[in-house]
Amino acid sequence: MRTYTSVTFSDVKITGPFWSERLDCVLSRTIPSQHQKLVEYAMLDSLKLPQPAPPLTIARNVHNFTTQIFWDSDIGKWIEAAAYALSHRRDPLIEAQIEAIIDDLERAQAPDGYLNCWYLGREPQNRWTNLRDNHELYNAGHLLEGAVAYFHTTGRDRMLRVMMRYMDHIAEVFGPEPGQKKGYPGHQEIELALIKLYHATQIRKYLDLATYFINQRGAQPHYFDIERDARGEPVAAFHQKTYEYNQSHKPVREQTKVVGHAVRAMYMYTAMADLAAELGDASLEKTCEALWEDVTRTRMYVTGGFGPSASNEGFTGDYDLPNDTAYAETCASVAMVFWAARMLNLNLDDQYGDMLELALYNTSLAGLSRDGTQYFYDNKLESDGNHQRWDWHPCPCCTMNVARLVASVAGYFYSVAEAEVAVHLYGGAEVSLPVAGGTVRLSEVSDYPWSGKIAITLDPQGTEAFTLALRIPGWAKGASARVNGQSVPIQTERGYFKLHRAWAKGDVVDLMLPIAPERVYAHPAVRQDLGRVALRRGPLVYCVEQQDINCPVAQVRLPATAALSQDWRADLLGGIMVIKAEGARVDLTAWGQSLYQNHPPPVVPSPLTAVPYYIWCNRGPNPMQVWLKE
Amino acid sequence: MRTYTSVTFSDVKITGPFWSERLDCVLSRTIPSQHQKLVEYAMLDSLKLPQPAPPLTIARNVHNFTTQIFWDSDIGKWIEAAAYALSHRRDPLIEAQIEAIIDDLERAQAPDGYLNCWYLGREPQNRWTNLRDNHELYNAGHLLEGAVAYFHTTGRDRMLRVMMRYMDHIAEVFGPEPGQKKGYPGHQEIELALIKLYHATQIRKYLDLATYFINQRGAQPHYFDIERDARGEPVAAFHQKTYEYNQSHKPVREQTKVVGHAVRAMYMYTAMADLAAELGDASLEKTCEALWEDVTRTRMYVTGGFGPSASNEGFTGDYDLPNDTAYAETCASVAMVFWAARMLNLNLDDQYGDMLELALYNTSLAGLSRDGTQYFYDNKLESDGNHQRWDWHPCPCCTMNVARLVASVAGYFYSVAEAEVAVHLYGGAEVSLPVAGGTVRLSEVSDYPWSGKIAITLDPQGTEAFTLALRIPGWAKGASARVNGQSVPIQTERGYFKLHRAWAKGDVVDLMLPIAPERVYAHPAVRQDLGRVALRRGPLVYCVEQQDINCPVAQVRLPATAALSQDWRADLLGGIMVIKAEGARVDLTAWGQSLYQNHPPPVVPSPLTAVPYYIWCNRGPNPMQVWLKE
Repeated sequence: MRTYTSVTFSDVKITGPFWSERLDCVLSRTIPSQHQKLVEYAMLDSLKLPQPAPPLTIARNVHNFTTQIFWDSDIGKWIEAAAYALSHRRDPLIEAQIEAIIDDLERAQAPDGYLNCWYLGREPQNRWTNLRDNHELYNAGHLLEGAVAYFHTTGRDRMLRVMMRYMDHIAEVFGPEPGQKKGYPGHQEIELALIKLYHATQIRKYLDLATYFINQRGAQPHYFDIERDARGEPVAAFHQKTYEYNQSHKPVREQTKVVGHAVRAMYMYTAMADLAAELGDASLEKTCEALWEDVTRTRMYVTGGFGPSASNEGFTGDYDLPNDTAYAETCASVAMVFWAARMLNLNLDDQYGDMLELALYNTSLAGLSRDGTQYFYDNKLESDGNHQRWDWHPCPCCTMNVARLVASVAGYFYSVAEAEVAVHLYGGAEVSLPVAGGTVRLSEVSDYPWSGKIAITLDPQGTEAFTLALRIPGWAKGASARVNGQSVPIQTERGYFKLHRAWAKGDVVDLMLPIAPERVYAHPAVRQDLGRVALRRGPLVYCVEQQDINCPVAQVRLPATAALSQDWRADLLGGIMVIKAEGARVDLTAWGQSLYQNHPPPVVPSPLTAVPYYIWCNRGPNPMQVWLKE
Repeated sequence: MRTYTSVTFSDVKITGPFWSERLDCVLSRTIPSQHQKLVEYAMLDSLKLPQPAPPLTIARNVHNFTTQIFWDSDIGKWIEAAAYALSHRRDPLIEAQIEAIIDDLERAQAPDGYLNCWYLGREPQNRWTNLRDNHELYNAGHLLEGAVAYFHTTGRDRMLRVMMRYMDHIAEVFGPEPGQKKGYPGHQEIELALIKLYHATQIRKYLDLATYFINQRGAQPHYFDIERDARGEPVAAFHQKTYEYNQSHKPVREQTKVVGHAVRAMYMYTAMADLAAELGDASLEKTCEALWEDVTRTRMYVTGGFGPSASNEGFTGDYDLPNDTAYAETCASVAMVFWAARMLNLNLDDQYGDMLELALYNTSLAGLSRDGTQYFYDNKLESDGNHQRWDWHPCPCCTMNVARLVASVAGYFYSVAEAEVAVHLYGGAEVSLPVAGGTVRLSEVSDYPWSGKIAITLDPQGTEAFTLALRIPGWAKGASARVNGQSVPIQTERGYFKLHRAWAKGDVVDLMLPIAPERVYAHPAVRQDLGRVALRRGPLVYCVEQQDINCPVAQVRLPATAALSQDWRADLLGGIMVIKAEGARVDLTAWGQSLYQNHPPPVVPSPLTAVPYYIWCNRGPNPMQVWLKE
């Protein structure tokens, strides 16, 4: 049962230094540079229908597959990211670029509402014949999310109307009635988008369609078998071999292990959590909790990355978390933020808030370069220096995903319940929230995540008595709080510190979260991390980059006895807190040239400096390691 | 300059328990079962020309490549292995099988001597048009080696005559004269085979042809470019991209780094060392020494495996020696034995003898199962239990290679010089050797490698004064010797203990090589082995298999302070010496279910048993690890 509702991005103003810098970067550099890429790669041209003959086509890969079939989704995600960014500062040029895309979409849309530019431009007769592989519903979902976000920011509903016509068409094609297709997306995404549309319009049909897609998934006879046979395609042609790949191997409520393509999984779990709340569906909620437990206990990188394997872009076995070959797609961590936010609204519990923060500040944020124009698709935890950010990617999903997450970070700060305001993230923000029949204005000031000192000033209007629930992160040992200067003992309910009182204008809550460098160890079943230690400081996981130490990163050691300290480095990477320690390294001087010997080389002290993982690889090719030998 | 000459396999009788068991296994199980596979896979049918229409053809892989083009070589290697085995015990059935193959080869041979059954059966017009990829000269070399071995064992020269006609044809097609092709093999092998033919026949032409192939390699304009252009094939179609792959990127004398496909490299270095000795070619000798230094100092597994990468079946960068993905092809270690034996004859130095022994007893021997009918193609140093021996392999090169090495092990025991007998390997053997104008019969009795106690009885005839040079392995610290019961101080010259005296019938040399468990550490630049230790006992490297310990192999630790002991286990795997230690393991009882924590789990004592690497994976699926955490 939904108990909390997220406060939408457009209602929150980010004021703190950490996120303001990232937001400015995305607005001023990422969004324009991505539009430039959409032009360069002819992606915007692909919307211009009818296409010339032969239509614009890019090369297919060995699976006879082209990334061009995803392009609608990339454009939809760019609009979505841009819309979020515009809510911070409107920009006529970007808005004109979006409007031009909407012009093309309006022109491209078929009379019945269908709107997939790949099929419309090339093989309109083959619509809805390969949901398993060809991403029609996925594309529709991303365009829809873009439309909803643009509507929220600007109030303009032209794109929303286009997409509603398309959704109406989809709701006619798919469903339980005779004559309707019993299908669902091969790449989940539209489900969560339809719920956003439902929230924006309150039209029940869209919630029902999302519910249908989730409930129908994995039913027998299997829809992907049926459509494969209708295409006359051999069974072996499905290069992923198993329907675990797209989580349709069994009905969703029977799923207890996170499997397959990580992004598909996370998008689906997001919609399932949404539906559990909307419908009060206890079985879906229980399934979400089981899957959550599975992924966080057995299949998660310490950096909040998911899916170690490149071959399925997804999950492998329990505790299999290789570092140097980690896939850990940026999109998967972005999607985990979505899922965690929904879980938080189902049950206010800092296991969800902590995960939201971990995935946000580490693997997700690492996906975008400091200058906002380069990206990681996969996020390794160990690199010999060859792993570098891309200017663009043949499948640019991650580029837009990290942009839309950063641009919408404001939407993850707060939730509200009837007489309660929950604060999940810190870092400087202002918001007016409806609570207990009135509103309250919260002004949060902090230099989080560099400092754990947080000051929240309240300004209630038309209300007095409500609960302020503050997330006390799991890593914050010994947090303390004052209200108007008076110390208040911290007691938490599932990680939230709930202050219930009659509030007055100017009340100030000071929260002190002790942020200090600490060691992290992995479960011993994670063989790749055995005998190794990672460093964390507050929400940030750290890594060692070659440039900061005087021996190969692979050779650096952090003895268990070494004290950890922190140092603010205003000169480094725009200002970051580094972690320092008296580490150690092997002394090669006595080793000689032989490859093997009977005695290990001596170990000598060697200073160690670690930097936040999210900011690695912004100083050129640089070997890096998260897990250090102890 | 060649100073020593190897004593050929057919002159040595293996009598000791270790190698007798392996030889019996190869003769009674491996050779017959391999013949059965040659039948089952229609490989013998491929020799029956003309082929029916359409000819016998197996599927091509993604590179439009079929392993069927190698089949001549596999058959040649089977004949070679069988011939070696027959020198220990003749077998009419096996000999009849070989004779039947020779019948087919005689019938298949073209009037001009050409004999490649793939081309003759399918596209005779395309002979010699793709040396780079299609293994014509490689196949010829392996058939030739088979013919030479069969001749040595049986004295029958029918196959040898067939192959000499083929070699005569090849010597006409390739060479420096106008009208001759300036080519050389894409997969080196024929060079060393031609030198064997030269040794068997003393016909200089064959040595000259081997010399031509070696000297011509890497010359500009590049022959593989010329033939590619003649085929009208695009540059990009060469899937390996670089001529480093087949060591033709530069002339051989300019090569200083071991690169590319490991087996090709080792076969080439073998021929180069042979030629250096035959021709007194100092530049080739120097090149061999530089390449030897490179591979042993930077690119060799502790198990005597070579070539970490599956993608090129070969070498990557210095100190890049991954354990769980190690390719370390069985064939590459077999080929290292060949190379090391040639280097030993160039310069008697136990760095070569030690390597010969390491590659022989570990990665090579691991390639054959205890029962003699299953094989490893790649030899990982760490397995989660999924790495298993094959009954056969689509490319069965390793199956015959390990069989021919084991069957010919007698050929690696001794070398002779004018007035010197050098003993490289121990383990029980009898031999009569020409020395100083007479002969000497040596009877060596030992239970090597389980024991280092070696007794050699001499019986000189027509000679008295000569040197007996005994290899003192680098790992044998504190070796001692007695002659007729009298202690003799051991002094070594480059690792060989040279006893010069007038010998009499019945003289006994007792050599005691202290064989004890010891630790081995890798150069710290091998990042995969940092903080890890391996175990060795004499020539055998050890590993830990899951069945012998009570925690996951990945979690076992061997503290630096733990004493090592040994234990003869007659009940285990046919009788082996195991290494035991008071190891340690993490204690999971207090960890709980979380994936990450701030404190490492406690470490508790746990007994550790290690078994020889060569015998691992003979008890069903079994996780295994060579490098243990310290």
